Amino acid sequence: MSFAERLAAAVIHSDTCLCVGIDPWADRLPGRGALSNPTRPELAELARRFGLAVVDAATGQVPAVKPQFAFFEALGPEGMAALADVCVAARAAGLLVIGDAKRGDIGSTATAYAEATLSAHAPFPCDALTVSPFLGPDTVEPFLSVAEANDRGLFVLLRTSNPGSARWQEPVVTDLSSWIDAQNAERGEYGPLGAVVGATHRDVSLALRAAMPHTWFLVPGFGAQGGSAADAKVALRPDGLGALIVSARGATFPSVPSPDYDANPVGWIRARIGATRAELAAG
Amino acid sequence: MSFAERLAAAVIHSDTCLCVGIDPWADRLPGRGALSNPTRPELAELARRFGLAVVDAATGQVPAVKPQFAFFEALGPEGMAALADVCVAARAAGLLVIGDAKRGDIGSTATAYAEATLSAHAPFPCDALTVSPFLGPDTVEPFLSVAEANDRGLFVLLRTSNPGSARWQEPVVTDLSSWIDAQNAERGEYGPLGAVVGATHRDVSLALRAAMPHTWFLVPGFGAQGGSAADAKVALRPDGLGALIVSARGATFPSVPSPDYDANPVGWIRARIGATRAELAAG
Repeated sequence: MSFAERLAAAVIHSDTCLCVGIDPWADRLPGRGALSNPTRPELAELARRFGLAVVDAATGQVPAVKPQFAFFEALGPEGMAALADVCVAARAAGLLVIGDAKRGDIGSTATAYAEATLSAHAPFPCDALTVSPFLGPDTVEPFLSVAEANDRGLFVLLRTSNPGSARWQEPVVTDLSSWIDAQNAERGEYGPLGAVVGATHRDVSLALRAAMPHTWFLVPGFGAQGGSAADAKVALRPDGLGALIVSARGATFPSVPSPDYDANPVGWIRARIGATRAELAAG
Repeated sequence: MSFAERLAAAVIHSDTCLCVGIDPWADRLPGRGALSNPTRPELAELARRFGLAVVDAATGQVPAVKPQFAFFEALGPEGMAALADVCVAARAAGLLVIGDAKRGDIGSTATAYAEATLSAHAPFPCDALTVSPFLGPDTVEPFLSVAEANDRGLFVLLRTSNPGSARWQEPVVTDLSSWIDAQNAERGEYGPLGAVVGATHRDVSLALRAAMPHTWFLVPGFGAQGGSAADAKVALRPDGLGALIVSARGATFPSVPSPDYDANPVGWIRARIGATRAELAAG
C-alpha cells in the first residue's frame, strides 16, 4: 500500500487524527531530576527511554508519532542511536513514524538524507519525512523518488505555525501549494506529498484545504503553540481524513515537574494522550 | 574574535578563499573497492578515515572545510560519530569548520540544532552552520543567539546553485538579502550572518554582492556543478574578502577509480587541493 493509503487506514482504524510528537526535551525528561550533572550519553539514554515510553503509551491510541530529530541530534551520536531505536520500536508497534527533520538539499545530498530515513534499510526508519522546499522543486524530487520506491511519504513545509512564517512563505504559497497538489493529483485521490500547515492561521488553513484536495496536511500548533482543536480541525476534509494533527509537549510532559510522571511515565503519557484525543474529538 | 573576524584572518593567512567540502560519498570512499559487501558501520569507518584524510590534506592550505551532514547521517549513528570526529579534528588542526546541514526549525527546536553544532560543548562542533530561512526571521534568531554567544557564524540559504533555485527563492531574495545585510550592518563591517549564493548564476551573484556589503558569501557550484573560477569570484569584494568558494568532490575524489588515490588518499587530496587553489587564483 502507498503511504497515503496506509495513513488513511491508520486514521480510520484509530478513530483519531492525533499524531503524538516525541520531543525529548533534555531538561524535563523522566528521571532527569535524579541526575545532578548528567553527561550527554546519560541524557541520550533518558531520551531513548522517554521515546520508548511515548511509543508504548501511543500504541493502539493514535495512528502516528512524530520524533523531532533536533532534540536527538543535540545529544550527539548517542542521541542519534536513541532516535534510531525509537523509530524502529514505533514501526514495530504498528505506529506510523513521521520523521520531523525538515531536511532539504540538492541532488545526491538530498538522496542521502532520504536514504537515511525512507529507504528499506534506513538507519532512522520513518514512514514519512518533513522536508523544506526552499531550494526548489528539483530538490524535492530526489526525496520523492526514494519515498515512492519504498511506499513512504513526505510533508513539505508550506505554512508553518510560528508568528514569522508569512514573511518568506506567503510570497510562494500559491505556487507551492499548486505544485504539491498537482504532483498528488497525477497519482490518485491522495498522493505521497503532504504539506505542513500550522493550526495557528485559521483562514490560511481553510483556503489551503479548499485548494489542495489531494494532499494530506500535517498540522502542528495545536495546544501548546496556541491553536485550538477547532482551529486545527479546519485542515480536515468533510470525511474526517486529510490531516494529522500534532500534539507534542502537551501530550507528553507535565506543565510542572511531577513525581507521578517520573514514577510511571508510560501510564502518565497514556492517560494524557487519551485526554488529548478526547479534547480533539470534542473541539 | 567574532566569526567574521576569524574568517577574514584565516582567508588572509591562507592566501586563498577556497573551502574544501567533505562529502563522504559511500560508493567512492578510499578503501571501498576492497570490501565486497560492506556493513553500514564499516562504511562509517571509511567515511571517518576519508574525512580525517581531507582534514590532513587541507591543513595549512585553506582556511576552512565544509562537512556535508547528509552523507554522515545516511551511515547511521556510527556515521554521526564519524562526523563528530572529523569536526573535532578539523578545529584542532586550525581549520574553520562550516557545517553544511541546512537546518531550520522554530523556537526551542532551532535552539537544539544550534546547540548540536555551535555551542561551547557541541557534539558536532562547527564554526558556522548553513541554515534555511524559509520558516521566517523568528526562526533564524535562535540560531543567531547561540552563534553570537559562542563567536560562531551562520550561512543562510539565499540563492542556491541548483537549476530550480529561482522558483521559490527569487520571490523573496530582495527582502531576505536586505534582512541579512541589515542584521550584519548593526554589528560592524562584517557580521555573523553569511549567505549561500551559488556560483552558477553570475548576474544574481553580482547584484547580491553589490547589495550586501556586510555579508560573507558561501559559494557552492564551483567546478563539478559547472561554475567557473571567474563565475565564483564575482562573489568577492575588491579586497579579496567576503566569500568562501567551495570545491567538494572535485577537490577530494578522482573522476574515475584510481589505485593512486586508494594507496595514498592524503597525498592525492593534498595535491588536488593545491591544483584547485591554483585554478581559483588564476581564474
